[in-house]
Formats: sequence, C-alpha cells, structure tokens
Amino acid sequence: MEKHLTAGIKIPTLVLDEKIAKRNLKRMAEKAAAQDIRFRPHFKTHQSAEVGDWMRVNGVEHITVSSVKMAQFFADKGWHDILIAFPINLRESTEIEQLAAEIELSLLVESVESAKRLNDFLGSITDVWIKIDTGMNRAGIWWENINEIFDVAKSVISADHLRLKGLLTHAGQTYHASSINEIMRMYSDSNSSIISVRESLQNHGIKELELSVGDTPGCWLSDDLGDVDEIRPGNFIFFDAMMHNLGVCLLEEIAVAVACPVVAKHESRNEVVIYGGAVHLSKEFIHHEGNTIYGYVALNDDFGWRILNSGNFVKSLSQEHGIIQVASEHFSRIGIGDLIYVIPVHVCLAVDALKREYIILPDNNQ
Amino acid sequence: MEKHLTAGIKIPTLVLDEKIAKRNLKRMAEKAAAQDIRFRPHFKTHQSAEVGDWMRVNGVEHITVSSVKMAQFFADKGWHDILIAFPINLRESTEIEQLAAEIELSLLVESVESAKRLNDFLGSITDVWIKIDTGMNRAGIWWENINEIFDVAKSVISADHLRLKGLLTHAGQTYHASSINEIMRMYSDSNSSIISVRESLQNHGIKELELSVGDTPGCWLSDDLGDVDEIRPGNFIFFDAMMHNLGVCLLEEIAVAVACPVVAKHESRNEVVIYGGAVHLSKEFIHHEGNTIYGYVALNDDFGWRILNSGNFVKSLSQEHGIIQVASEHFSRIGIGDLIYVIPVHVCLAVDALKREYIILPDNNQ
Repeated sequence: MEKHLTAGIKIPTLVLDEKIAKRNLKRMAEKAAAQDIRFRPHFKTHQSAEVGDWMRVNGVEHITVSSVKMAQFFADKGWHDILIAFPINLRESTEIEQLAAEIELSLLVESVESAKRLNDFLGSITDVWIKIDTGMNRAGIWWENINEIFDVAKSVISADHLRLKGLLTHAGQTYHASSINEIMRMYSDSNSSIISVRESLQNHGIKELELSVGDTPGCWLSDDLGDVDEIRPGNFIFFDAMMHNLGVCLLEEIAVAVACPVVAKHESRNEVVIYGGAVHLSKEFIHHEGNTIYGYVALNDDFGWRILNSGNFVKSLSQEHGIIQVASEHFSRIGIGDLIYVIPVHVCLAVDALKREYIILPDNNQ
Repeated sequence: MEKHLTAGIKIPTLVLDEKIAKRNLKRMAEKAAAQDIRFRPHFKTHQSAEVGDWMRVNGVEHITVSSVKMAQFFADKGWHDILIAFPINLRESTEIEQLAAEIELSLLVESVESAKRLNDFLGSITDVWIKIDTGMNRAGIWWENINEIFDVAKSVISADHLRLKGLLTHAGQTYHASSINEIMRMYSDSNSSIISVRESLQNHGIKELELSVGDTPGCWLSDDLGDVDEIRPGNFIFFDAMMHNLGVCLLEEIAVAVACPVVAKHESRNEVVIYGGAVHLSKEFIHHEGNTIYGYVALNDDFGWRILNSGNFVKSLSQEHGIIQVASEHFSRIGIGDLIYVIPVHVCLAVDALKREYIILPDNNQ
C-alpha cells in the first residue's frame, strides 16, 4: 500500500487501484477491438475525468452516461460523442438542446410522444436510439411488440431533428442470474432478441439500424460479443462484491475499496464500528455464504488491500455507521483509528456518493 | 401546490412543506419544554441552515450532528453548542481540536483508549458523554457492563481536557418494533437501563451525570419523556414512509417528498419510469402491505401532494431509474414529463443525497 497516500485519510474515502483498473480496461477494450465492435463504456461507474483519460489512451472515443448532468461534465472534459443511456427527460430540454448543439449527442426514446416532444425542442439534428426491453423489464419497449417499435421508428424517421441510429438494450437481468452459464445464455438471448427486432424492421423497410448492447456480466464473460455494433459495459473497470458474488470477476480484479476509519470495537460480539455508512456505501446488499452483507472487508497490505474470507463482512449500515463482523483471528489486530477497507456491493453507487473523496493508488510499474 | 415553485423542477428535487415541518417541530419542542427537558434535535435529518433557523425560533440552542463535517457546517452558521453523536473519529483530530476551541463541543467516547487519545490531542476542555448501548447493539458499552463503564468514566474524569457530562444512548431498536406499544415500552426500558447505570455510577462516587436519550419513535409517541435531561430526536421534523409504516406518524405529518420527472410509461405492467433512483432516494426499503417498497407515491394537488393508497408504490430502484407501480385509476392521468412525488423510506438518506437540490413550499398563512 502507498502508505503516504492512505495515511492522510480522515473520512470514508474511495481508493482506486490504477493497475487493476487499467488491466480490466485493457481486457475489455481489446476484446471489443478484436471483434470490430465499437467500445462505448458507461462512465457512470467512475464519473472521473482521470479515469476517462485512461480510457482515451485505450482508444475510447465514444462514451455512455446516465444523466444530462454527467453528459455536461464529460463534454466539459473534452468528450465529443456522448450517449445518454436513460429515457429522455423532457424537463431538461434546455440543457439537452445545448448539449446537442455542442457535441455528437445520442439520446434514447421509447414512445412516439417522447420522440415528438424531443423533436419540438431540438435545434440540431441528433442521433436517437430506440430503447428495447429484452428481459430486464425496467425501461424500453418489449422486443416482441414490433408494431409499437415500428411506430416509434417511423416517428423518429419523420422528425426533422432526429436521426434514427439504431436499437439499444441493456440486459440487466444478468445481474440476477444464478450461474455464469446463465449469464452467457441471457446475454446471447438478449442479442438474439434485438437482432430479430432489427430483422423485423428491415422487413418493414427500415434498414441500416445499429445495435447497441452491453451489461458488464455478459460482455466480460462472453468470448463472442455477438452480431452487434457497440457495447456499453461500465462496472467492469472497477468491479465490486456483487460482481464477484455472481461469479463474474475474481477478487484480484476488484479495483476499488472504500477506506473507513475504525471508531469502536465490541469484543463480545467480534464487531468493529467504522465511520462509513449508508451515505457512503449505499444500502445495496447481497446474500453471500449464508449472510446478508453490505460489503466485503479488507485490510491493508503492502500491495493494496487484502480481502478477508467470508467470516468477515459488513453486517449492517446506518446513516454514518457501519458494523463489521470480524473473525476472531483478525479482531485483535484491528485498532481504533485504523482504516478498514470495504469492497462495496455496488461500486457505481459508492462512487456516486464518494466522487469528491477519491484517491488513486498509482501503478508504479507502468 | 405552489405551481411556480415546482414548475421549474428538472431533476429529482427534495420538496419540503414548511407548514407541516413547523407543526412537527412545535409539537416536539413544546413537549420537551413542558417536561423541562433540554431539546437537542438531531440536525442530520435536515442538514439545512434554513430549517436550523426555524428551530432557533422555537428556542433550540443545543444541537446534535453525526459527523465532524456537519458540526463544522453548523458552527459556521452560528450554532455554539453542538454534540457529535458518533463515536469519536481519531483521524479527524485536527478538525475536532479546532471545533473544540471555537464552540461548546460535546463528544462521545466508549472506550478508555478513545478517551486517552482524545485527551492527548485536545487543547480545550471539552464535554464528553459516555455512549451506552441499551438494546440497539450498534455502538456504545452494554448498559449492564458497569465495570467497563466505570473504567471509561474514571479515564474521562482523570483526563485534563475532558469533562464528563453524562451518559448517552440511542434506542434505535424502536425502528424495528412491531407496534406502537412496543415502541413506548422500548423507550421506557431504554430509559430505565440508562437510569440504572447512572445509579450504579453514583454508588461508585460519580455524581451529577446527565442523561441524553432520544429516538424519534419513542420521543414522539411517549407522553412522559422520563427522568432524563435531554432528548435528541431528528427524523420527526420531516418523517418518512418508514415512520408511517411503523405507526409513528400520520400521512399528513410527512413534510418531505422527492419530486421526480416521469420519463416513460409501460401500460402493460401499469408501471411508470421516473428519473429518481438509488442515488437520490437510497436503497432503503420497507415491507408494506405485502410488498417490498422503496417509497410511497404521491401526486400534485392544490395544497402540496396527495399520497396515493397502497396499490401505488416505488417498486424498484437502480442508479438513476425508479419504477413506480401505479393503480389503473391513476395510470392514464400521469403523463411523460409530469412530476411524481415520492415519500422516501428513510428521509435522512434522501436529504443527504439531495441536500443541494432542495425547495421549500412556504407556509403562506404564517
């Protein structure tokens, strides 16, 4: 561990291991390049200008974000091709119009109404993707509702300021899979569904639609990314306890931990109280080896952090407090005032909470 | 509803009804005053200078916060007596010492080690409360461990810069009660426990210790606040779905909602997609009338918002998306681009996430 960097940590702080993140990035970028698929990583995971720069070095030119505010942030950092992968928020028309005038902006629609109202306020011609639901049941038009998709496609095509770019899906159902094989099958099934939508639209005379897909589990695990034009994974750059628990990543592929000060110890319960709660880590939980947990626990070591086995976990979180269950063999080695490292369950939420409290452990071998 | 105030809402925004909050505040302040108990409300619930000013008008001079950062914020706003109700974080020694020099600061300790290390870095004499666990099992010394409490008390008394003020507990177990009667019994039992600790310490020669207690459920519901010196409830000023679900407050006592833009509708599932997710509302959930829910749902009305019945609820949250289950009779009345109001499950977490996106519906009758 870079002692001089972490020694100054006073409050819950995100610690990012540059070497691991860059290794993850390289693997995903190379896989996409080898299959000639556009790599449009989701920047909501890191929300960092510096991590964005690492991506640029790896050839990334096209990016994904999940809000207008994030698009503004990265446009200010010199990104010129940004997809807002969220159903268009009509109340931000002024901000969207301004972005559309400045950069290559891509937007999602999933209804004729949204397409029409978007067209009404846009001044520049803007790329639009139709959001398709291939099984997540969150947003998008269900992939079998071809008539509805066709109606939206027609409304986009006939709109003066919209250019129909393609069909987009997020197979987030992979986050609930029960095995690696199921993840790969879900990814492949989702691709088959959106490919069939493209074929149906072709039969209706709408040609040359691109396909954009890409959840981290599917993109990371599948050797064959499929007959698609772009992928948009985000989580893979950092990974987290949820991804490890799902079987997607190895512990040594997790690039982020939250360093939390130890503020109290309760020996009778083998519990350690940390400054680090729901406002830092989020209340996202997983079921892991018989327990409901809010994060893995790690201790400092010479090279970063060392994740402890499953007898050690974040047991509960309130607003600012975290309770860590610690196995007996580690309990006496943890002192009040020390740092404990928590591997968050969902790294995107921890990053969003801590994006102003961020340190990077540099890769000294590069 | 103050149309001109909410019309400009573009992104998830906390909306605070001044009239309701002030009514809640008055009720709690009057109850404490009538029983001659110091009212030291917890400011982590609102984190707002303006709401703090409302409290000042109601005679509040002593406040509670849950972090050093919050203490700094309110010290800057002119608050001179602040208790940090969180186990002392030794890594913030510089900031704590500076605050102790500027204001009447009160701190919590729960071990001899923390007391000694705190004393080593403090330059000013500072009030210390010993944190006692009366059943929450989060932080504090278990109330029956009199020897351990006595050891900490002695270490505080013998420390040059520490002044032992009293014993403090938070009966947060009331949040998990199954009835109003159980809440009141838990509150009363917690008070009995800490009173017995005071008696034991008196028998050991440690006299004139104050008692500080106060969770919202117990303080709001109990007519008799008990033989204590101060109460520290926080949530009561706003209330939330969790408090209503527990039976603590009425719907018309909930003073805060999060206004969220509608971005898509799915008629086949009676679902509405809002811009408003885990980063705005937190992933805190409750079990309510057979469903796991992330918030109550309300629509605009002339006087603020109107909470819909239990067939309408926040069904799931991802980073930025919320999925609202809407009963058929309301579905067609909700349009893309409209605002839906969500009553958060845990208002303190929503406020922490949205404290920069805050509007107040003024009480025009005052």
